[in-house]
Amino acid sequence: MKEAMQTFKKPWARCLGSDRVSTILRAEYWEDFDRVRDVLGVEYIRCHGLLEDDLGLVRRPEYEGKKELVFNFAYLDRIFDTMKAHGVRPYIEWGFMPSVLASGTQTIFWWKGNVTPPADWKEWALLLSTLVTHWITRYGLEEVRRWPMEVWNEPNLPGFWQGADKEAYFKLYETSVKAIKAVDEGIEVGGPAICGGNDQWIDDFLDYVSERKLPLDFVTRHLYCADKPTKVTPDYLYQPIYDVSKPLEELASVRKRIDAKGYSALPFHITEFNTSYNPRCPVHDTPFNAAYLAGLLAEAGKHVELMSYWTFTDVFEEIDIPRPFFHGGFGLLGRGGVAKPTFHLFAFMDRLEGEIIFQSPHAIATRRPDGSIAIVAWNPCGVADPVHEEMEERRMDILIPAAPSPLLVLRKRVSDHFANPWDAWRNMGRPSSPTGDQLEHIRLASSPAVETSVLKGAAGEQKVPLVLGRNEITLLELTPFVDESPSYKGLDDSLINGY
Amino acid sequence: MKEAMQTFKKPWARCLGSDRVSTILRAEYWEDFDRVRDVLGVEYIRCHGLLEDDLGLVRRPEYEGKKELVFNFAYLDRIFDTMKAHGVRPYIEWGFMPSVLASGTQTIFWWKGNVTPPADWKEWALLLSTLVTHWITRYGLEEVRRWPMEVWNEPNLPGFWQGADKEAYFKLYETSVKAIKAVDEGIEVGGPAICGGNDQWIDDFLDYVSERKLPLDFVTRHLYCADKPTKVTPDYLYQPIYDVSKPLEELASVRKRIDAKGYSALPFHITEFNTSYNPRCPVHDTPFNAAYLAGLLAEAGKHVELMSYWTFTDVFEEIDIPRPFFHGGFGLLGRGGVAKPTFHLFAFMDRLEGEIIFQSPHAIATRRPDGSIAIVAWNPCGVADPVHEEMEERRMDILIPAAPSPLLVLRKRVSDHFANPWDAWRNMGRPSSPTGDQLEHIRLASSPAVETSVLKGAAGEQKVPLVLGRNEITLLELTPFVDESPSYKGLDDSLINGY
Amino acid sequence: MKEAMQTFKKPWARCLGSDRVSTILRAEYWEDFDRVRDVLGVEYIRCHGLLEDDLGLVRRPEYEGKKELVFNFAYLDRIFDTMKAHGVRPYIEWGFMPSVLASGTQTIFWWKGNVTPPADWKEWALLLSTLVTHWITRYGLEEVRRWPMEVWNEPNLPGFWQGADKEAYFKLYETSVKAIKAVDEGIEVGGPAICGGNDQWIDDFLDYVSERKLPLDFVTRHLYCADKPTKVTPDYLYQPIYDVSKPLEELASVRKRIDAKGYSALPFHITEFNTSYNPRCPVHDTPFNAAYLAGLLAEAGKHVELMSYWTFTDVFEEIDIPRPFFHGGFGLLGRGGVAKPTFHLFAFMDRLEGEIIFQSPHAIATRRPDGSIAIVAWNPCGVADPVHEEMEERRMDILIPAAPSPLLVLRKRVSDHFANPWDAWRNMGRPSSPTGDQLEHIRLASSPAVETSVLKGAAGEQKVPLVLGRNEITLLELTPFVDESPSYKGLDDSLINGY
Amino acid sequence: MKEAMQTFKKPWARCLGSDRVSTILRAEYWEDFDRVRDVLGVEYIRCHGLLEDDLGLVRRPEYEGKKELVFNFAYLDRIFDTMKAHGVRPYIEWGFMPSVLASGTQTIFWWKGNVTPPADWKEWALLLSTLVTHWITRYGLEEVRRWPMEVWNEPNLPGFWQGADKEAYFKLYETSVKAIKAVDEGIEVGGPAICGGNDQWIDDFLDYVSERKLPLDFVTRHLYCADKPTKVTPDYLYQPIYDVSKPLEELASVRKRIDAKGYSALPFHITEFNTSYNPRCPVHDTPFNAAYLAGLLAEAGKHVELMSYWTFTDVFEEIDIPRPFFHGGFGLLGRGGVAKPTFHLFAFMDRLEGEIIFQSPHAIATRRPDGSIAIVAWNPCGVADPVHEEMEERRMDILIPAAPSPLLVLRKRVSDHFANPWDAWRNMGRPSSPTGDQLEHIRLASSPAVETSVLKGAAGEQKVPLVLGRNEITLLELTPFVDESPSYKGLDDSLINGY
Repeated sequence: MKEAMQTFKKPWARCLGSDRVSTILRAEYWEDFDRVRDVLGVEYIRCHGLLEDDLGLVRRPEYEGKKELVFNFAYLDRIFDTMKAHGVRPYIEWGFMPSVLASGTQTIFWWKGNVTPPADWKEWALLLSTLVTHWITRYGLEEVRRWPMEVWNEPNLPGFWQGADKEAYFKLYETSVKAIKAVDEGIEVGGPAICGGNDQWIDDFLDYVSERKLPLDFVTRHLYCADKPTKVTPDYLYQPIYDVSKPLEELASVRKRIDAKGYSALPFHITEFNTSYNPRCPVHDTPFNAAYLAGLLAEAGKHVELMSYWTFTDVFEEIDIPRPFFHGGFGLLGRGGVAKPTFHLFAFMDRLEGEIIFQSPHAIATRRPDGSIAIVAWNPCGVADPVHEEMEERRMDILIPAAPSPLLVLRKRVSDHFANPWDAWRNMGRPSSPTGDQLEHIRLASSPAVETSVLKGAAGEQKVPLVLGRNEITLLELTPFVDESPSYKGLDDSLINGY
Repeated sequence: MKEAMQTFKKPWARCLGSDRVSTILRAEYWEDFDRVRDVLGVEYIRCHGLLEDDLGLVRRPEYEGKKELVFNFAYLDRIFDTMKAHGVRPYIEWGFMPSVLASGTQTIFWWKGNVTPPADWKEWALLLSTLVTHWITRYGLEEVRRWPMEVWNEPNLPGFWQGADKEAYFKLYETSVKAIKAVDEGIEVGGPAICGGNDQWIDDFLDYVSERKLPLDFVTRHLYCADKPTKVTPDYLYQPIYDVSKPLEELASVRKRIDAKGYSALPFHITEFNTSYNPRCPVHDTPFNAAYLAGLLAEAGKHVELMSYWTFTDVFEEIDIPRPFFHGGFGLLGRGGVAKPTFHLFAFMDRLEGEIIFQSPHAIATRRPDGSIAIVAWNPCGVADPVHEEMEERRMDILIPAAPSPLLVLRKRVSDHFANPWDAWRNMGRPSSPTGDQLEHIRLASSPAVETSVLKGAAGEQKVPLVLGRNEITLLELTPFVDESPSYKGLDDSLINGY
Repeated sequence: MKEAMQTFKKPWARCLGSDRVSTILRAEYWEDFDRVRDVLGVEYIRCHGLLEDDLGLVRRPEYEGKKELVFNFAYLDRIFDTMKAHGVRPYIEWGFMPSVLASGTQTIFWWKGNVTPPADWKEWALLLSTLVTHWITRYGLEEVRRWPMEVWNEPNLPGFWQGADKEAYFKLYETSVKAIKAVDEGIEVGGPAICGGNDQWIDDFLDYVSERKLPLDFVTRHLYCADKPTKVTPDYLYQPIYDVSKPLEELASVRKRIDAKGYSALPFHITEFNTSYNPRCPVHDTPFNAAYLAGLLAEAGKHVELMSYWTFTDVFEEIDIPRPFFHGGFGLLGRGGVAKPTFHLFAFMDRLEGEIIFQSPHAIATRRPDGSIAIVAWNPCGVADPVHEEMEERRMDILIPAAPSPLLVLRKRVSDHFANPWDAWRNMGRPSSPTGDQLEHIRLASSPAVETSVLKGAAGEQKVPLVLGRNEITLLELTPFVDESPSYKGLDDSLINGY
Repeated sequence: MKEAMQTFKKPWARCLGSDRVSTILRAEYWEDFDRVRDVLGVEYIRCHGLLEDDLGLVRRPEYEGKKELVFNFAYLDRIFDTMKAHGVRPYIEWGFMPSVLASGTQTIFWWKGNVTPPADWKEWALLLSTLVTHWITRYGLEEVRRWPMEVWNEPNLPGFWQGADKEAYFKLYETSVKAIKAVDEGIEVGGPAICGGNDQWIDDFLDYVSERKLPLDFVTRHLYCADKPTKVTPDYLYQPIYDVSKPLEELASVRKRIDAKGYSALPFHITEFNTSYNPRCPVHDTPFNAAYLAGLLAEAGKHVELMSYWTFTDVFEEIDIPRPFFHGGFGLLGRGGVAKPTFHLFAFMDRLEGEIIFQSPHAIATRRPDGSIAIVAWNPCGVADPVHEEMEERRMDILIPAAPSPLLVLRKRVSDHFANPWDAWRNMGRPSSPTGDQLEHIRLASSPAVETSVLKGAAGEQKVPLVLGRNEITLLELTPFVDESPSYKGLDDSLINGY
């Protein structure tokens, strides 16, 4: 605490992921978003599957013997208008391939995203420039310049890009960035959007861009923390989770690769992250997920400028429409808008603001501009043998600077014991479609426990002692106050029944 | 439990009191009512101070040399229209005296309710018949027949009725009931609306009614549980609270008086009740108030048909506009819509439904029509020397019948420790007007703690063991469920991190 | 008017159609429904495409070497829960074929509804009985008995039912009705759901049902009023419209067929109707559509018990996602919730209530239970050569009975000139995706013109003279009133500026 | 139009008046405000009667033998918090005198505002400085600096200020401005808040301020356009209205007086204006009121910086609670939120923006920053003998500059014939408390008639011909558009039925 204070950075508060763009038409999508919005001032939604056929963007009808490309913005305009009305911007992901433009028939997912290169690269360029031009007309140039545009999604996986063909991807990037910049140079374009495990792609991509003098405004990659599945069933899939040091090292290492190629000025965006990369892995629904990711969120700002949680809502159907209520979906919110523990993690972490006044492997504290103090602490069970581990408490002291006046202490707790809706759901027999009453019970069981107390003012540094339960994340907000009690003349608590 | 099962009756769920009718024009009034409505299917709001000058009901303007009574329903129509829109009916209290009709100038309260008899008894009759006729035209006869009408308020107190003149009150009752029944005999009229301590009035009133063969549809009285103040200050007033057996005995005793006079068929309505009768007594804001009244609510249905809590909202200004945020107001809800512990008492008690399957001095349980079980238990600290009493837990076992399938147990707790917003407010220095952030903290601190667990099914009677903290009220809802887990093939909790 | 008075029947107010069930997940769907709900107390939404793969109802996953059918109610429960929350019930249409059950691959529409018989008829029966059982568990038996269930959709067209195979359809009906009635005999089942032009199917279906002694609770058919297209383009399609006498004759004729087969006790349901059967025919967006259908709605109650407008919303994508804002969609409401003239037709017609006191080919009047009178009149341009017809007014007199007191006359008008949003859209250059401002202009231009006047009371029958513009529909509501003016002493309009 | 273009100024769009501050607690108040807010981006509500006893701001309780001033901000904080939540600021009016501070007992209005000087001038200063300090603590200094503060209301009338004592008022101003500026010099203070007819007060006030070197940030006065009443009844009062040139001359003349005293840099605020100054004069409810005031609003920006309509809502009870539904109240909105014609005047006028491109005695047009054109025109009947005047139309041509592309023309009309809810109310017998149905009819009759058409583009200046009915105000908005029709290949309106 003797060093220069550092400001706490929240790259994970800027952008959130969700399923393909057509799901944004759903009522439940916006119910969920509004719940997230209540606690997180997020700027972007990553727009995945933007070019899917179910938005009707591009067709090639025949009329009077001719077939010509026709663009239809009806749905996309409605979606972006709705985003605007909710105060959030699109983070564009260019993909996948509209079927009338595709060179092949390979698809991915239940909703059949075509993952082949364009048959005619000029038509791909035309699609992008037409959309960008349309957006500028409708939303204004200044606005569209604030929409980052990423080319494709995980091209280093053969499922997502035919053959994981690196050269074809580079051509796609080149075609795309040129088409967009031809409309307006101020629009920001990035790539290569790879998933982890192939970071050589980063180097090769930067070399390609550098050699061809292509514009590049930011570098993108994904980040997951799970090993290969150990068991797969029709409804669930199980995976071991790495120690949290591993994903943190990956962030540092990619940042180094970027710098080493002479691109140290470019922002680094993680356009997807979570523990498991599979939407049926139960870990996503647990308090452990929150307590584990706390350590990642606390450190991520040192390495990246933006980091998009995949995803904020369980309105999501990559593999198929899931059957169980809690099905291991990525969402911060489960079905029915139920807050999972990780929802509260984001809410708690976002209360941190201003300079960091304390940091340890299991806690962080900041002093906020208004003088109040926010502390987040966490206690994930270990990843080595979590199941057989004994229940354990973790004790710690948080050090805070002198506070001359008393402080109101408001504490919120999420753990195996508190705000664990997964457990409430198990306690009612895991109904696939909870009834209204059951859903109400699950919701009730998803609220953090709340406690208030007083911390006396002190002249010097103070210890704030804390005890955390298993898989707990806890938020403390300490707010100085003026005692108005003396103005109530004759006040005497000792005369009140029950006090 | 061997006797015939009795159905739990909830006379206190039917009607709620509030300040004089003109406060119903306020936005905060309806914000509070809607919050109450979420948890209590209340049918009536008692309409107190209905005839106050600030509703403009009756005036005597001069025009072309003549002065005539003119009626103005504008505000009252708006108020009753609003009630209708919110699905609640008026419980009419006829009073106090419009100044243009009054024989004297004595007033009560900050808002100056005139408490003198009418100068011209025919004009009083005209006022009542005009209003009743107008209501029938506007709302329909069937509707108005469902509005109980009580004559005056606490005429046995000289502050509320000039000289506490019993004979004048009987004349008022007679004039009123005749005027109303002349419009429609089906409208229900009652009295004498006395406060406790003068139950001889009940006898005399029934004798008067009986001798004169006057119609009478229900008998009304108030009920409070506090002794004289021990300390009075500008902002607060302190009073000892009686043992809960005393108010219960009063209920039984008045019922006996009514029966003894040959009116056993008439309903008995408590048109006001609470612990203290003073809107500045801090007890109203405490968990003790809830834990104490639990015993009264659990038993009241044996004696009365309707019992109206005084009041549901702190939008209330009898003495003056209170200065502190928590000022000992009567409200179930404090300012800013903050739920006091007694709000939760009503919410918890209203979850009881159907036959009583267990009852003790500190708990009651019912089996609900859908097969689920609701339990409410309470643990008020004693009233003898509450302040110096040691903190104590209370242990008890609730007996419930055989339940072949497992039960989800949802528990909600309110006590000195949980859902005690008064304490949170104290912990922030008792601000008179909390800021938005402070109010948010107080609201957070007013939510019951929630826990879920599973109770295994059993062939015979089971014990549900409970431990209650100091001044705790607790609700348990036990719902049988079918376990759907077996349908998730391959499900294995032991593979989930953190479980 | 000398005959016994008849009560006006509104079979078209009971049920409305919409696109396949998965569109019910969309936010815009409910925005539109709520707008309709404001003016029409509709009981049912016809649930079309209920069994589509995009609801995920039935799958056949492989696990540990076995493949078994698995049912997933998640989306359908959400949809029906939402309906319940909005106070509307499903009118079930059983179809089309889930791909895991289908015997073939023939599909219809952009969303690829499989139209082949089941591969295994037992699985079809299992699907139906599983769903019906689930619904009874979730919503209660009494509720589900109020959900009419129709087997398939337009099986007499080869596009909708492979080969338009009549015998296969009869087998489908038989399998379905037996499966449903095996769960509960009280659930109502009907067919054959044919489109017009093949009414021999009605006879054959009734013969089949009769011979096999199959249960049948109602007979269903569709009704459209358009001839074959004269021009087809990528965005629009044009069709001549029949004289309104033709569809009315069809209704009478089918009713006769049903009676002739001994089924006169059965209700007759038109489960789809509109002018054109194509969702790109501009007629749906015009005032003509409303003025034309007025004549049908005024008479339909003589022939049918239920008649479901196809559709209430332009959230609809059978052929593809339409490009223009007004694209000839079926909806009462266009995109952005814009009320088309036919929306107002339903609103106007639904104000008719009680006994018919006047009826002519262009007007109908009823006396409502509260004593007020409602009149709807219409003036469609002819269908023979509508385009070159001169603009014309229509004059008429409506006869109403004696009204001793004066009547407030409230008139609302929709015509080529008033409440014609299609025209407003044309006047702004037909933008495909109107901006917020443009949409606001279109909405403003979709409100009926409103006029009030006074009709003096009269001892005998009175003439209400009316002049209607081209393609006008007009609503008059005549309400008796008491003049309160005399109570305002000294009132003198002549002293008010501007009067 | 050859001169330099002038920007249209809207001093009347900045602030609106309403009844004493305690009415702001009412639900109807905010329902009305929100309706106004939809059409007018108003910054201020003038806070009249801020210091009334019914807000409980200041009391002098006795405790332990001493009496001391106590301040209670509970209600005022709620009110200002609500304003903040609705995005509007207070324009403070310091008055009237709290009874515990008053030197006398003279009151004004039904709600008994005390109009006597303070008994102790130091206590008055203490009240002001306490409130200002509290506001700064709660809302921040930057915010409170944006709250203009006016000292008292109409002190030149003996009803509003005991004896209309000019010297006492100057002392009040001096005491107030010193008390406020002692807290913060940046807070803006003004006076003398006189009503018209005594403009010598302006001179004397400025002399006083100048001689004593007192701070003064703006000059305030009221403006009404009505002569003495010609008839007064219990419910209504009738007054002649001056020619609109008279109030406009008053504005110019006061501005000259201010400039002549060397205060040309000070803003001039009209803190109240309307036609009649009496809340029972029916003119306020008429289309004439709108058509008359149009001429004032069009010119006012040349003379004043702020001009506050008195009042925006009929929640108002100066004389008493009015009995009729339309009672000549000041409100832009009548009871039940019904839009009076003057509401639309403000809505129409606020659509004017940017440079003035045309102005005549009955019309004004501006070109808005986005290139569209807004025109407002008006046609009040004359004030000389309005009642016997013949119904007349007014024809005019508006000149607009070259517009190369076609323009959508959206017209909204309010007149004796359109959007005249007063007339609808008369047509239903002037019910004092309309039922829900009646209110719905009145609301429907209060919407402007809407028409759309197309104006072809032209190379040079164009005439837009207009015909206005009696007492009409009309808004035209002309928006250039791009015709998208050509993109709909095969489009042929001639094939659509009814076109």
